[in-house]
Amino acid sequence: MKKTALIMAGGRGERFWPKSRKSLPKQFLSLTEDGKTMIQLTIERIRPLVRMEDIFISTNRVYRELVLEQLPEILPENILCEPVGRNTAPCIGLAAVHMAKRYDDALMIVLPSDHLIKYNQMFLNVLKEGCGIAQKAANLVTIGITPDYPETGYGYIKYRPEESDGNAYAVERFVEKPDVETAKEYLETEEYLWNSGMFVWKVSTIMDNIRTALPDLYEGLVKIGETLGTEKQEMVLEKVFPEFESVSIDYGIMEKAQNIFILPGVFGWDDVGSWLAVDRIRKSNESGNVVSGNIITIHSKNNIIQGGKKLIAAVGLEGLIIVDTEDATLICEKGSAPDIKMVLENLKICNREEYL
Amino acid sequence: MKKTALIMAGGRGERFWPKSRKSLPKQFLSLTEDGKTMIQLTIERIRPLVRMEDIFISTNRVYRELVLEQLPEILPENILCEPVGRNTAPCIGLAAVHMAKRYDDALMIVLPSDHLIKYNQMFLNVLKEGCGIAQKAANLVTIGITPDYPETGYGYIKYRPEESDGNAYAVERFVEKPDVETAKEYLETEEYLWNSGMFVWKVSTIMDNIRTALPDLYEGLVKIGETLGTEKQEMVLEKVFPEFESVSIDYGIMEKAQNIFILPGVFGWDDVGSWLAVDRIRKSNESGNVVSGNIITIHSKNNIIQGGKKLIAAVGLEGLIIVDTEDATLICEKGSAPDIKMVLENLKICNREEYL
Repeated sequence: MKKTALIMAGGRGERFWPKSRKSLPKQFLSLTEDGKTMIQLTIERIRPLVRMEDIFISTNRVYRELVLEQLPEILPENILCEPVGRNTAPCIGLAAVHMAKRYDDALMIVLPSDHLIKYNQMFLNVLKEGCGIAQKAANLVTIGITPDYPETGYGYIKYRPEESDGNAYAVERFVEKPDVETAKEYLETEEYLWNSGMFVWKVSTIMDNIRTALPDLYEGLVKIGETLGTEKQEMVLEKVFPEFESVSIDYGIMEKAQNIFILPGVFGWDDVGSWLAVDRIRKSNESGNVVSGNIITIHSKNNIIQGGKKLIAAVGLEGLIIVDTEDATLICEKGSAPDIKMVLENLKICNREEYL
Repeated sequence: MKKTALIMAGGRGERFWPKSRKSLPKQFLSLTEDGKTMIQLTIERIRPLVRMEDIFISTNRVYRELVLEQLPEILPENILCEPVGRNTAPCIGLAAVHMAKRYDDALMIVLPSDHLIKYNQMFLNVLKEGCGIAQKAANLVTIGITPDYPETGYGYIKYRPEESDGNAYAVERFVEKPDVETAKEYLETEEYLWNSGMFVWKVSTIMDNIRTALPDLYEGLVKIGETLGTEKQEMVLEKVFPEFESVSIDYGIMEKAQNIFILPGVFGWDDVGSWLAVDRIRKSNESGNVVSGNIITIHSKNNIIQGGKKLIAAVGLEGLIIVDTEDATLICEKGSAPDIKMVLENLKICNREEYL
């Protein structure tokens, strides 16, 4: 069966401020040493499994130019531009009607555009197995990550260890981000995996599930699907899409669906959730500093310093995140990384849009 | 007797890097809230005592334009440009021959250009008393600062408490920068004051002392003096001055001279020796941050942040010095301020002259 991929690239992450901006979200940033952007790495990673013309990018239309620029090899008609963001269920639904229009039915691999994976071949093997499970029945396949610690920023998925199919397990339920006590319990039971937001299913399977769980969305998608390739396409999308309820695929579909299987992924996944991730994904020097740009460090250790042309001199510093851009510089104690959002709130309140 | 002042402005201080540069040393920086530069404040401070046309500025010729720009009211012929820096003895000697040429003899008040004084009227009263003592005999008058703590970065002056003349005391000896143990002993004896580098004497007195203690310097100064106002003036200065031994007035004259009096100054003196001084000379906000520029602070306290147009966001920071300039940013833990010089050494080694 034809394999397609949907790369979801509509996010507006704020946690990499000041490098990430409304006009340049995380997926379009280069955070690794190879200089490639997150979305470029995502495409490169999936290429051995999916032909270039079968890779779809879903994004907000304000990012269309960025996608064209960073991914010139993607078919322009495969860049699906949402008029407004409506979370992942409408996003996946829109891609599904495009894929159905082109191939009737196909396998659909859904991937975030801003995660990193260390062991690409293992990742592809997991996806291949996922394709097999998704193809042979109306199964929804999700990729779960073995948790290392009680993270409270991710959703968790409870699986049934006794119900397996190859490496996949039947899913009992999806749960929202837990508090730390609950997360600790999840870890102890060894029956929960992190929800990576990566999925495999047939286009027909996800459409059936949308019809059952989100009938209004289904109805709108059908309207959009009928006009694809006609001159009304843009106008109908423009009218129908903004009316969709904003709902995630997890909450809207997965929490209610049957026949869900989870494949545990042990391929060095990292969601690169904040500047702290840079410590994991880049090499540090002998002082534990991860630096790039025009930097001098004196008696400084365990800092993340991301500069450019401008000279940054760090003297006697420990455990800081320093990020310099053309118009703004962030200096943040590592433990205070979650408070970076307070800077953005402050900027919003003061109408300083130019920095957002 | 005519009162003249010599403002010494040839210094190349590195401790305010990256704001201070070879091309813009500390005396030409504005570090206080009023926006005036250190040298402008120095001139303003002495004005009630000395007429503008009797104020001389000694500097390196590379700073002549800066002096003209910042002090347009100074007579251009009162800007004495040294071809090369030869420390304070030749500097003061050169000014003395200029003053002698113009007034035969005069009182000479010697002041650094990069110190701050809080109580100007008290300062002027001390100088007035100094002028009286310097005028009535061949006395060398120095202004001493009552020490608060065992500073090892200043020279000390031992006075004789029992030998006083008004508020002035006879000086027993000048001593170089002590180690911390010695400095503590000095404090305990209560017979030592800090050497502020401010002096009052007659032109004739200092020339006599130079003749006795530094005869080579004297000889050269006489040669220079003979050509003042002639077409040979520049040529002779150019030839003679670089041959002078580099020697401080403290070491070359004061450590050997007789008839030295010290006037204790309690007028809120600050030598503004490093970025840490900014905590003393500027107002902090309720979090103990001293900020200027386009700054957002979140959960941050007791920082010195000097920016400009560029946004600086400080998150979770404590006790840092952050200084942003057009081409370089310094981020330094307050306790590591002395290590800023290591940044400059590093830049010198790497031939990165543009940052020095």
